[in-house]
Amino acid sequence: MAPQYAPSLRSRLAPLLLFLQIGFIVIYAFYTEIDSNVKADGTTFSSFYSDFQDVNVMVILGFGFICTFLVRYGFSGSGFNLLVAVIATQWALILNGTESWYYRGKIQINLRSLVVAEMCTASALISIGTMVGKTNPVHLIVIALLEVSGFVLNEWLLQTLLKARPVNSIMLLHIFGAFFGLMLTWILYRDESMQRFEKEKYDRKTGLFSMLGTVFLWMFWPSFNSVLLDNRIPGRKLGAVCSTYLALAVSAVTAAAVSVLSSPKGKHNLIQMQSCILAGGVAVGVSMSGIHQPWEAMTIGFAAAVVSTIGFRYLKIHMLLAFQCHETCAVMSTHGLPGLLGWLAQLVLEIKDCDDHTTAIRFAVFHICTVLITITLSLSTGIITGLLLKWNFWRPPQDKKCFDDQAFWEVGNQVFIYIQANTISSQGE
Amino acid sequence: MAPQYAPSLRSRLAPLLLFLQIGFIVIYAFYTEIDSNVKADGTTFSSFYSDFQDVNVMVILGFGFICTFLVRYGFSGSGFNLLVAVIATQWALILNGTESWYYRGKIQINLRSLVVAEMCTASALISIGTMVGKTNPVHLIVIALLEVSGFVLNEWLLQTLLKARPVNSIMLLHIFGAFFGLMLTWILYRDESMQRFEKEKYDRKTGLFSMLGTVFLWMFWPSFNSVLLDNRIPGRKLGAVCSTYLALAVSAVTAAAVSVLSSPKGKHNLIQMQSCILAGGVAVGVSMSGIHQPWEAMTIGFAAAVVSTIGFRYLKIHMLLAFQCHETCAVMSTHGLPGLLGWLAQLVLEIKDCDDHTTAIRFAVFHICTVLITITLSLSTGIITGLLLKWNFWRPPQDKKCFDDQAFWEVGNQVFIYIQANTISSQGE
Amino acid sequence: MAPQYAPSLRSRLAPLLLFLQIGFIVIYAFYTEIDSNVKADGTTFSSFYSDFQDVNVMVILGFGFICTFLVRYGFSGSGFNLLVAVIATQWALILNGTESWYYRGKIQINLRSLVVAEMCTASALISIGTMVGKTNPVHLIVIALLEVSGFVLNEWLLQTLLKARPVNSIMLLHIFGAFFGLMLTWILYRDESMQRFEKEKYDRKTGLFSMLGTVFLWMFWPSFNSVLLDNRIPGRKLGAVCSTYLALAVSAVTAAAVSVLSSPKGKHNLIQMQSCILAGGVAVGVSMSGIHQPWEAMTIGFAAAVVSTIGFRYLKIHMLLAFQCHETCAVMSTHGLPGLLGWLAQLVLEIKDCDDHTTAIRFAVFHICTVLITITLSLSTGIITGLLLKWNFWRPPQDKKCFDDQAFWEVGNQVFIYIQANTISSQGE
Repeated sequence: MAPQYAPSLRSRLAPLLLFLQIGFIVIYAFYTEIDSNVKADGTTFSSFYSDFQDVNVMVILGFGFICTFLVRYGFSGSGFNLLVAVIATQWALILNGTESWYYRGKIQINLRSLVVAEMCTASALISIGTMVGKTNPVHLIVIALLEVSGFVLNEWLLQTLLKARPVNSIMLLHIFGAFFGLMLTWILYRDESMQRFEKEKYDRKTGLFSMLGTVFLWMFWPSFNSVLLDNRIPGRKLGAVCSTYLALAVSAVTAAAVSVLSSPKGKHNLIQMQSCILAGGVAVGVSMSGIHQPWEAMTIGFAAAVVSTIGFRYLKIHMLLAFQCHETCAVMSTHGLPGLLGWLAQLVLEIKDCDDHTTAIRFAVFHICTVLITITLSLSTGIITGLLLKWNFWRPPQDKKCFDDQAFWEVGNQVFIYIQANTISSQGE
Repeated sequence: MAPQYAPSLRSRLAPLLLFLQIGFIVIYAFYTEIDSNVKADGTTFSSFYSDFQDVNVMVILGFGFICTFLVRYGFSGSGFNLLVAVIATQWALILNGTESWYYRGKIQINLRSLVVAEMCTASALISIGTMVGKTNPVHLIVIALLEVSGFVLNEWLLQTLLKARPVNSIMLLHIFGAFFGLMLTWILYRDESMQRFEKEKYDRKTGLFSMLGTVFLWMFWPSFNSVLLDNRIPGRKLGAVCSTYLALAVSAVTAAAVSVLSSPKGKHNLIQMQSCILAGGVAVGVSMSGIHQPWEAMTIGFAAAVVSTIGFRYLKIHMLLAFQCHETCAVMSTHGLPGLLGWLAQLVLEIKDCDDHTTAIRFAVFHICTVLITITLSLSTGIITGLLLKWNFWRPPQDKKCFDDQAFWEVGNQVFIYIQANTISSQGE
Repeated sequence: MAPQYAPSLRSRLAPLLLFLQIGFIVIYAFYTEIDSNVKADGTTFSSFYSDFQDVNVMVILGFGFICTFLVRYGFSGSGFNLLVAVIATQWALILNGTESWYYRGKIQINLRSLVVAEMCTASALISIGTMVGKTNPVHLIVIALLEVSGFVLNEWLLQTLLKARPVNSIMLLHIFGAFFGLMLTWILYRDESMQRFEKEKYDRKTGLFSMLGTVFLWMFWPSFNSVLLDNRIPGRKLGAVCSTYLALAVSAVTAAAVSVLSSPKGKHNLIQMQSCILAGGVAVGVSMSGIHQPWEAMTIGFAAAVVSTIGFRYLKIHMLLAFQCHETCAVMSTHGLPGLLGWLAQLVLEIKDCDDHTTAIRFAVFHICTVLITITLSLSTGIITGLLLKWNFWRPPQDKKCFDDQAFWEVGNQVFIYIQANTISSQGE
């Protein structure tokens, strides 16, 4: 008979966390310093700090609470997200700084490097979205570390081999994260998925917590897309903010329309709407450098929402039946498809702007190479990670304990039993 | 026998949304451009952007979650708010830009125009607060479009006929929204209101979601009142921020005191407190240009909270019984009465500052004309909108389906039934 | 027989609130003015305003929602927090301004004085965290007024007698608040605490509301620690932000590890995690001026999380059994112990940087005096406040009504009964 309780993680999670954290402190002690090279008047710091906070809110609160829609998995959804995010950010700070370490001997920590690290973290959180509820925190940490490593490697390849601009290569995080996650779902497939997990559902209250996370992502997406742009080129950031805002607005309207159209009873679906209203932000983020007019951003937002809504309704179920890929958070239709659409839109827009054929073809080849490298690397690192996680050493939760906080958290009154037992025993003395 | 299910909106909502959205994209394609005329050093953008985000958070999150207190209407409260807000903002951007389009051929989109558009949206959301739960999303969109049109017309009249300052005419949004909503409740009265709707109640958890929205409105209200003020006049914005903060603080204390005094059992009421702690922000927003000392703002906050708390306790029920106006969110006592009080306070303060009688009388006449035009226009556009919405073509929900998400959303397990049905049918193949 | 209902607060709370509020307005009318001495270009205002908002969000939303974990006490947790916070802030503005009033005749109100006042408020809210659920709002207001007075007195003593820097003395708020609260729990001990209060528990949904508050505190803690630092010294604020961020990240990882290690079943505990992930922010806040390297901040964060997690698991229960101190929110292990640890870390770091023995010994004596004065003053004012609150005149809730909103709020349908009764009586007419 299978054991009734989820396996204890005491001997796996605690040593892993302590090892990682002490390791990070040692590395930071020898190889990092806080960047003292800021402008004296403080303008740079102040104007960047509120953008940094917006991205921070998206990564910690937005991604954390969007996963709380599962009715019995809210503590894990928000708690593990925080845990994984801070580990991934510390790791990404180190990896992103290796070049600076190589040339200057020290990794510089400043607000910009923190923001870039949080974006790598966002890419890992996107991958994790596919596996929410079917993994334990040890899995999540391994996924995050390997995903961030793969993503930073991808960035480095694009910037070194293809001379891609840093901002553009970072914005591919949606595509990288989605395909990485797809491979995980494929390799770590569980038969239970076909009959639907018993606890994979939401209710009126958890839907609202998840709405809260979504709304924070939606509101601060303009900051996410504009934070790394150069402030010195006048109007660059403003353009990015307005484009993203308009694309998100169009996405929200279009997602509502298509969702009602595709429902037999003409009803909305909250989780579908939450996924699809963000599609415009993803697509515009990827295609940012090609957008010059409001209507271009709006059209991309419209197309992204259509693709995303239809993907949510039909793609998810077919991926499960045809390819045995069960993903929890519809990452493919929120980040994968809109990301690819944004890539395509950028190709079209940039070619349209080219004066002669040679430049156009050169750009097209460059642009196609970019996405091919990204997808190849994300698929291969995803497969490696998935295979590594199949190992039973990590103590995966049983099918019955999937989507349940009780496997990892002292839920409800359990917490007080310990205190009471203590009280009684000490009163008996 | 009446039909058991709420009428499907598939043939109404989806075409309307698609028509509006495609129409907006076409208009934006021909008549808008992103304003490239920003200062090169980026200071303007950075310092304005966090104010913009504060207003954005208020409109999307604040107004959205303040409506989630209804126990079975949380998805609609937050979801439809987002949908309506983005449509109204796109529409307001067009309407506000007509003057610039007339003179320069293009509507300029920048952060300031986005903020002004979101304020027009706020005015529409205030009106909608009266009708929450008794309408379908098609109604809400029609209300939002007509309310925004009426409000922009009002602004234009005030600025053209009376040479009112833009900031002052925008701040009348509370009065305009409240009286517009009042007319809607009067015309769209349902007999069921008299016996109270079965599902018009809140519980411990939905009360907290609503508290969350309220707290965001409360915290960022200083940004709302100060965002459009001229940064070049030293101390102007600081004065507005401090005045609003103090007025809100006084409001919170006073609302708690009066609410306990007016309750037979000496208890607080969460929904009453949520409405009334915001009264100070409304009143100070309207009377801003007359306030020069902290105590003036505090006294206005005190009076506003008293009027608002008493209004919530007695006005709401008398409006229902005497005038058959049933409003869900106590908009009259949160925005209407404090708005009028702020108007009166401004009159007194400005006259007090006048040196001679002529100026004082001139200002009084101007000020009274302002509010008369606003109320007249808001009542008349409200009546027109209400009559238009009486048409059964819009498929209003039955009385029994009021205040219920189930009329518009796939709630709970419904969402998975579709997937399961698919699974089974494909397994049978 | 004891009365079945909680005593009505109508005759206590309402007069107290009105008296305080009208008193504040009178004082503000005669002795305050809005500071007009801001730089003309607005840079100062803009860059400070978003920091002010971050602190405001922490005080109102963060502290408010972290107290909502109690299953039947959410309305009080968030509502009374707002009420107490605005009263304490108005009071702290007056007290902090007495020096400026003495020399210039007026108390200057600007963003900096608002932030300092909110930090004094935070100190009061920390004390109140120990008494949540076992007090009525009248108690809370008395605690807040006396705690703020004691804290401002402490600040004044440190700055006058020891010439301590203002920022450093303000950051002792964690230690002051925790020990003040400790005395309250000791003096206001109830026998019921030993058997555990019936309603002192959390569930899946209230745990998430509380997580929301925690996450806001966690995200904006860098603003809290850096807001009062001098912007003119290049890199000062950046250093504080990066140090705090890293310490918080390390705290989160370490708290998770130690919490799993110390649990017999290898499970996390949500409330423990919420308390302990903040420990790094507290410790770094206190030791800020001694930290120059990232690894120093990280090591302090690590130690603080270890101390805090172990404190939560063992200290709380032993303080209850040995000293009869029952605290609701684990304030001692979140603020008290990490605060003392930060104080110790600063001592070590500063002495390490000293060149000669004389300076080192002088600093050590100064530093030990600082903390001794703070603890003495906080313990003595705490005892005075506790004794004052033992007076039955304040109508404390019975043991059975502890941790229950119903004692103070119209919960659920009660609110509508009043309206319905009115309806029926008026229909009968």
